[in-house]
Amino acid sequence: MAQKPGIPKGTRDFSPEEVARRDYIIQTIKEQFRLFGFQPIETPSFENSETLMGKYGEEGDRLIFKILNSGDYLARVDDDLYRKKEAALLTGAISEKALRYDLTVPFARYVVMHQNDINFPFKRYQIQPVWRADRPQKGRYREFWQCDADAVGSASLWQEVAFVQLYDAVFVGLQLQGVTVKMNHRKLLSGMAEIAGAGAQLTDFTVALDKLDKIGEEGVKKEMRDKGIAVTAIEKLWPLFHFRGSNREKLQRLKTVLAASETGMQGIKELEFIINAVEEVGLTAASLALDITLARGLNYYTGAIVEVAAPPEVAMGSIGGGGRYDDLTGIFGLPQVSGVGISFGLDRIYLALDALDLFPVRVKKTTDVLCINFGEKEALQSLRLIKTLRAAGVAAQLYPDPVKMKKQLQYADKEHIPFVILIGAQELEQGTFVLKNMAAGNQETHPVAS
Amino acid sequence: MAQKPGIPKGTRDFSPEEVARRDYIIQTIKEQFRLFGFQPIETPSFENSETLMGKYGEEGDRLIFKILNSGDYLARVDDDLYRKKEAALLTGAISEKALRYDLTVPFARYVVMHQNDINFPFKRYQIQPVWRADRPQKGRYREFWQCDADAVGSASLWQEVAFVQLYDAVFVGLQLQGVTVKMNHRKLLSGMAEIAGAGAQLTDFTVALDKLDKIGEEGVKKEMRDKGIAVTAIEKLWPLFHFRGSNREKLQRLKTVLAASETGMQGIKELEFIINAVEEVGLTAASLALDITLARGLNYYTGAIVEVAAPPEVAMGSIGGGGRYDDLTGIFGLPQVSGVGISFGLDRIYLALDALDLFPVRVKKTTDVLCINFGEKEALQSLRLIKTLRAAGVAAQLYPDPVKMKKQLQYADKEHIPFVILIGAQELEQGTFVLKNMAAGNQETHPVAS
Repeated sequence: MAQKPGIPKGTRDFSPEEVARRDYIIQTIKEQFRLFGFQPIETPSFENSETLMGKYGEEGDRLIFKILNSGDYLARVDDDLYRKKEAALLTGAISEKALRYDLTVPFARYVVMHQNDINFPFKRYQIQPVWRADRPQKGRYREFWQCDADAVGSASLWQEVAFVQLYDAVFVGLQLQGVTVKMNHRKLLSGMAEIAGAGAQLTDFTVALDKLDKIGEEGVKKEMRDKGIAVTAIEKLWPLFHFRGSNREKLQRLKTVLAASETGMQGIKELEFIINAVEEVGLTAASLALDITLARGLNYYTGAIVEVAAPPEVAMGSIGGGGRYDDLTGIFGLPQVSGVGISFGLDRIYLALDALDLFPVRVKKTTDVLCINFGEKEALQSLRLIKTLRAAGVAAQLYPDPVKMKKQLQYADKEHIPFVILIGAQELEQGTFVLKNMAAGNQETHPVAS
Repeated sequence: MAQKPGIPKGTRDFSPEEVARRDYIIQTIKEQFRLFGFQPIETPSFENSETLMGKYGEEGDRLIFKILNSGDYLARVDDDLYRKKEAALLTGAISEKALRYDLTVPFARYVVMHQNDINFPFKRYQIQPVWRADRPQKGRYREFWQCDADAVGSASLWQEVAFVQLYDAVFVGLQLQGVTVKMNHRKLLSGMAEIAGAGAQLTDFTVALDKLDKIGEEGVKKEMRDKGIAVTAIEKLWPLFHFRGSNREKLQRLKTVLAASETGMQGIKELEFIINAVEEVGLTAASLALDITLARGLNYYTGAIVEVAAPPEVAMGSIGGGGRYDDLTGIFGLPQVSGVGISFGLDRIYLALDALDLFPVRVKKTTDVLCINFGEKEALQSLRLIKTLRAAGVAAQLYPDPVKMKKQLQYADKEHIPFVILIGAQELEQGTFVLKNMAAGNQETHPVAS
């Protein structure tokens, strides 16, 4: 009996129209990557498990898809280990490879492996799928694409400036106005934790802060108190989370509050440099906003961090993010390579453009001309004309079967093909063809150039 | 201790230059796909195991990469089954998904799943990686890309004609002259087997014939005899494998030998139609050659089959292949959908272009202009100029650190960046910039447009 076909949950088929729209986004991003001097690399879909495991925390490890060894993979498994029937133990014995979970760790591995061929500072981009065994939900998939750009081998803050400009340039390209690039600094967060007497608890502090959107002010305060952070200190910092004004005004105020923290002041100084430069040169589609509640979960960030919010009229999480990391390649044996990178959330940008009806009509690519098939001799003559059209860049095809003309015209209609060419017995004899405009309905007779 | 990084055997990292070259091939193919009226789709990297298993023969099944179920995947495994410690039994209990092995089966699955949204005849292309647990060797990888184009829902031979033209158009685009599209027909092979008294042994007959290149004439004859095919019949057919002349001359001769086989004559008639039409319209980079020793292993082919040989000056296997299949979607419950498809061998085309030095210089994409960094104020002014350059489509970047000019120029040199812009204290004051041509060595001063 025939199988009823399906696909694994959390994965997707993309139709021609969806591919064309995704391609429009990707090409727009790639063009800006090129203009900003980034070069593409690609890494394998699966890596050795040891390359990936332990890099994303315990939760991340669980979400990594492992690949079963080939052949008789049980032959070499120790009997005692096998008898325990524990997945956590058996996995290491029957699986050596895993699908990549992100593009950052494979990039770090790439930099270390190819360090002798790389001319630093190295600016690379990478647009490839990644896989996570996450619970699928709206906008979250088990297979999705990451678009990452990173610059490694330079601690210069001009890199951060360029990345804010890059976000802006991409959203200009996509005609997506009203995007906000939120920026914070890990050292500013450290400074705040220090002032709050929670310097040793920076992780607890930022983890709690990161939940502000989800659990609200009281929730965050409660979590901080539960973690043992002093109530008076929390209250001292709290007004900062409500302050308004320009980025410069905010920075001034932070300087007063964080004056006693050397680390905090270092963060402020860096933010001041970046924000100043960005504002001097100017943004078009996006605005840059200092947001001291921005924490970002990933532990490898050490400097400025960013997150991009979609325009307020589309209710949606972040459409991009990134930051500075000081030692990503250290885990693979190449310490002290500072880098900064950002990511574009392809799926969410797609949803935002769709919601705002911002996909240009031209991305619905299709055939320009369909030649009606009236039989062997006429079709052969059509094929000669089609060859000329294609050489001129016109997408043209012959309807494959000499069925009723009505059916062939219906096909053209359904496929949104704008022009139809008719070469029947009469046209064949006279060396002409009829060009029919499907939308207007009119038609003209032309000679076939010989 | 830091891990020594590596990648799984049979997989590859692609450097910026390799990505650019691969992209050049892919874009050339895609442009022709578009001109011929093919539309892109994409399918998930992994499919449900039942979609893939049993479609590629026993050998194929073994080469499919299986993905371990997530979480505590042993919890639901039956104790009795587990105790047997047999990989063949356990796999089904601990793995439900697998990486795709080719693009053809996922395409058949796609057509059946989306049949109500598809306007037949459906012409799709798909360029995605596939994975096989094959023994890696020169030119054979465990992760590689397939570029497939298929037209389903029409039995018209004009499809076959278009596919030969498509191969030709792509090789014209790649400037790869001297390619041979070898063509045969499954029904012609059936006819020959029939005449040889081996009609019931068509598979044995074609499998033996397929090895002609590897084991030679005597080897093939021996294998046929071993399979019980009559010596006299083999001898009767054998001259066919040596005949020379034009395609039409060959077809005439075949008509005489296969006159008694209805199936064989049907194959000849179809080949005659295709070859005639192709020759009438003409090819540019490729030639079409009837090759009755061409068998192609895949069992789903039922009509014309093709295989593309690289130009003789590069010793290399086929760089593409395909054919007509009458019932690919039947396995998923949609019978009687005839289709025809071809594939481009990306890796081998890459090797052929490389061997013949046919990659255009312009595919080595890099930054057009590097701005030297002389310090904060100067850099900010450079950034304004860079913004203008990028808006004009010029790839420009600022060197991130104000290090010695010699080091910055060395970077430009290594990266093959053709122009350098200098804005030092003097230029900043005068509102000018210096443009230096790296190859020629000369430089000019220009005003910064305000």
